[in-house]
Amino acid sequence: MKKVHIIGLGLLGGSFALAVKKALPGWELTGFDQNPEHLNTAFEMGLIGKKLETPDADTSLVVVATPVDTLYSLIDKTLAQVGPGTLVLDFGSTKDELCQKMSSHPKRAQYLAVHPIAGTENSGPKAAEVNLFDGKVLIICEMDKTDVHLKGLAYEVFEAVNMKLRFMDPVDHDLHLAFVSHLSHISSFVLGKTVLDKTKDEKNIFDMAGSGFASTVRLAKSSPDMWAPIFFENKKNVLEALDSYIHHLSLFRQLIADGDEKGLNQEMKEANKIRDILDLKD
Amino acid sequence: MKKVHIIGLGLLGGSFALAVKKALPGWELTGFDQNPEHLNTAFEMGLIGKKLETPDADTSLVVVATPVDTLYSLIDKTLAQVGPGTLVLDFGSTKDELCQKMSSHPKRAQYLAVHPIAGTENSGPKAAEVNLFDGKVLIICEMDKTDVHLKGLAYEVFEAVNMKLRFMDPVDHDLHLAFVSHLSHISSFVLGKTVLDKTKDEKNIFDMAGSGFASTVRLAKSSPDMWAPIFFENKKNVLEALDSYIHHLSLFRQLIADGDEKGLNQEMKEANKIRDILDLKD
Repeated sequence: MKKVHIIGLGLLGGSFALAVKKALPGWELTGFDQNPEHLNTAFEMGLIGKKLETPDADTSLVVVATPVDTLYSLIDKTLAQVGPGTLVLDFGSTKDELCQKMSSHPKRAQYLAVHPIAGTENSGPKAAEVNLFDGKVLIICEMDKTDVHLKGLAYEVFEAVNMKLRFMDPVDHDLHLAFVSHLSHISSFVLGKTVLDKTKDEKNIFDMAGSGFASTVRLAKSSPDMWAPIFFENKKNVLEALDSYIHHLSLFRQLIADGDEKGLNQEMKEANKIRDILDLKD
Repeated sequence: MKKVHIIGLGLLGGSFALAVKKALPGWELTGFDQNPEHLNTAFEMGLIGKKLETPDADTSLVVVATPVDTLYSLIDKTLAQVGPGTLVLDFGSTKDELCQKMSSHPKRAQYLAVHPIAGTENSGPKAAEVNLFDGKVLIICEMDKTDVHLKGLAYEVFEAVNMKLRFMDPVDHDLHLAFVSHLSHISSFVLGKTVLDKTKDEKNIFDMAGSGFASTVRLAKSSPDMWAPIFFENKKNVLEALDSYIHHLSLFRQLIADGDEKGLNQEMKEANKIRDILDLKD
């Protein structure tokens, strides 16, 4: 019987626990969360079979699913606690800084840098969903730096929970994620803030908000504790993406101000191409 | 048997036809679309029972569901064709300019200005959905200016298709819609454009786009033919909303650039309040 230990029993850690439990029913799940309430909830929900601050030395896999600014110290601490047969991985949404810090770690071969492209706007153990990872992409960075036997076991688990593996350089990962994920969180947070600021004391105007607004602003419900560290850790790329977004918004603004029908239609038709790309994914 | 005539058999017109057909099965549905392909598709799908360029003079209700820049001339033309017992209404997303133009129309009492808060990113008759209007808000402007008997019939139809009526001044309508609808379309169009521009020739990076990106960028699939006229007709309010959005984005950018954890958390926590408001609507 193999053991999996999960640190951070929120949306991602909790969902991974549910997926492993379903896909690999013989395996033992232990876990920890620094929030005692979350830890108890996770245990009561059956996400883990045992609450454990320190993973057993013979644990096969430790997953660290906490905010990105806590990852290095938790990985470092965990590698000191476990035996040579344990693989430690993290689910962080930024990979470059962490991989750089890990590059000189004496136990680098026992670490695997991954990022599951999965999530919702909800957080905490109650937000866990058994199918959150099902069919989703898992990006793996610097795979060569991980011991071949240890990562073999990890691949087995990812396959069991039905994830699609993609391999990528951490620098490219962080740049692309700034555009396709971090930027859309910012656009949504700021859309929510803009509308709330304008409509103070007029809650009834939300009667006028349709499903389009709800969809666009959905990510504004996301956890600040999770997202602030991502924006700071990926600052360079996030600022590049945000500057480009503001630049494009200003161009769009000018086309409206100028009454430039042809130009505005052209911009929107180009944006429409996102349909083909998103449809490809379905 | 009452007759309803629909001009513009796209997403809204087509969905309204389906809803009326279901809720009021005895009624006769006629309609027209200037796109011959859409007109034929709508007829073949059974959205309308008869293709008719000019509504019969004894039609009870004519719905104009075309881009906002075409509404006044179509309403004006239709009022000249129908008898005194016909009510004409439009589904436009901007109301102020149209109500102003209509204010001096000799048949003003036969017109009702409404806006259903319903839609999807799709367009054309094939996008029609029978339940699109079910339980949704319908905003009615300047209700006093419409003949009491004629609007009584319209309210009967709206009730039959299960819409919630709200009454509002057209100036307020256009301002609020700029924030809760038009702005989210712009934020989404421009997000799509920004990401596409960055990721040209790298289609595979959309592997890295999760459900969050898909949700935020969904409205970028919307029809330019429908949306360009809305942005131009509501230019003043749209520019105010867009300037406020760009201003808030610049503030958010500065907080990231400065590494201001406390300030960034505060901004995101305030944006999180959108959850309570959206949840109220469910």
